[in-house]
Amino acid sequence: MTNDHFTRKYKSYKKEFGYSYTIGAYSTVELLSNRPEKALAVYIHSKHNDSRLIESLCGKKIEVIRDDKVFTQVHVNDKCYVLGVFQKYETVCCKDNPHIVLVNPSDMGNLGTIIRTVAGLGYKDLAVITPAADIYNPKTIRASMGALFRINFQHFETFKEYEQAFGNRTMFPFMLDGEIILRPDHCPKTKLFSLVFGNESTGLDQSFSKVGPGIKIPQTGQVDSLNLSVAVGIGAYMFSLNNGMLKD
Amino acid sequence: MTNDHFTRKYKSYKKEFGYSYTIGAYSTVELLSNRPEKALAVYIHSKHNDSRLIESLCGKKIEVIRDDKVFTQVHVNDKCYVLGVFQKYETVCCKDNPHIVLVNPSDMGNLGTIIRTVAGLGYKDLAVITPAADIYNPKTIRASMGALFRINFQHFETFKEYEQAFGNRTMFPFMLDGEIILRPDHCPKTKLFSLVFGNESTGLDQSFSKVGPGIKIPQTGQVDSLNLSVAVGIGAYMFSLNNGMLKD
Repeated sequence: MTNDHFTRKYKSYKKEFGYSYTIGAYSTVELLSNRPEKALAVYIHSKHNDSRLIESLCGKKIEVIRDDKVFTQVHVNDKCYVLGVFQKYETVCCKDNPHIVLVNPSDMGNLGTIIRTVAGLGYKDLAVITPAADIYNPKTIRASMGALFRINFQHFETFKEYEQAFGNRTMFPFMLDGEIILRPDHCPKTKLFSLVFGNESTGLDQSFSKVGPGIKIPQTGQVDSLNLSVAVGIGAYMFSLNNGMLKD
Repeated sequence: MTNDHFTRKYKSYKKEFGYSYTIGAYSTVELLSNRPEKALAVYIHSKHNDSRLIESLCGKKIEVIRDDKVFTQVHVNDKCYVLGVFQKYETVCCKDNPHIVLVNPSDMGNLGTIIRTVAGLGYKDLAVITPAADIYNPKTIRASMGALFRINFQHFETFKEYEQAFGNRTMFPFMLDGEIILRPDHCPKTKLFSLVFGNESTGLDQSFSKVGPGIKIPQTGQVDSLNLSVAVGIGAYMFSLNNGMLKD
């Protein structure tokens, strides 16, 4: 990482890089406001209009570089005139907070949308069981609208590893044959919980029915299932509202 | 359209075509099961394993063509070995059903995900106010998992035109400053309704506060707003459950 950073020969993002990019002003401002210590540099294209907010957030600690070439090198699509570079990092989920747990999410757009939903509905912690879509990929960050920088996220190699770290809570696996039908008047109230969602294609396998009470989002037979980010949105909303996590 | 169809010189999809494609077996089966009269042909790649279901759905009326070249011509991505061709059509929303109304949705992924959600949560009718993302684009259809073929969808040039056609119902515009905070114990019950959602970037403008009681999905200040398809999912779920549209 350090080599690329110091020689500034940035290229199209690859998963093995130690750094990644925020594409566009919105996500870059989220990076600078919430994780300034992870920002390595900010590039501004000559077509960008007003860089005062970004410059003031960078202050003297983060270098602001005016350079158009890097946008071509990194293959940023057109109309994006701000590029942040940040060092990858990982945080730890908080034992006292409710969590959203994704088991093997495979789509970066879904993962980013879920991060945005998590932050928007009053959650602060996301656990991801690998293999999973790359949380640092600029596409994920863009779909999250930079909300990645506002939450705690932690990866685990197996669900067992997650359970061992955070066993002291009620786990609710979302399953098409879950025993609890999620309804406005029938959503569990509980002090400390994790909502667990499976992969886009396969959902959660039967072994998850043992980790806690299964939740089913009622749906018609017109579709195979709801989209993962929609299912997480509905589940996260219902548990958040029923457990007093969201004030008006 | 007829020319391309009869000469079979299919190309990458363009909006001005009179026909479009279903990419992959799942969406093609949805087309053949729900709108067989719109199917023009089905192409099967030599790498496709078992085409019995598709052949039986096509019967004698829809031609099944074994041809690998067309997949390259249409620029289908790899691992998709079934391609349906269908004639574009438009249906009419039903006056007696609740509707989901999208005002200028701009993202095909969101539009497709919303179509899937609409069908999955017990709605049958989607109204789209133009300009809007192309509902027929193979990307939209793929994001809908072919659920487009299960619902009624109708385009309107202005919201006024929609109101004139379907005025006899309660319209609920979803707005960040809506007067009704959507909560599990505080979701309107109503005989006939439309849920109205704005564009991804701009939402609904202030003029919509006059069309009916504004609904606000409570959310933190951590994000600008929820993703459109997540907001539609939460709103559609709450109204569906509270108005008896979804049985277990």
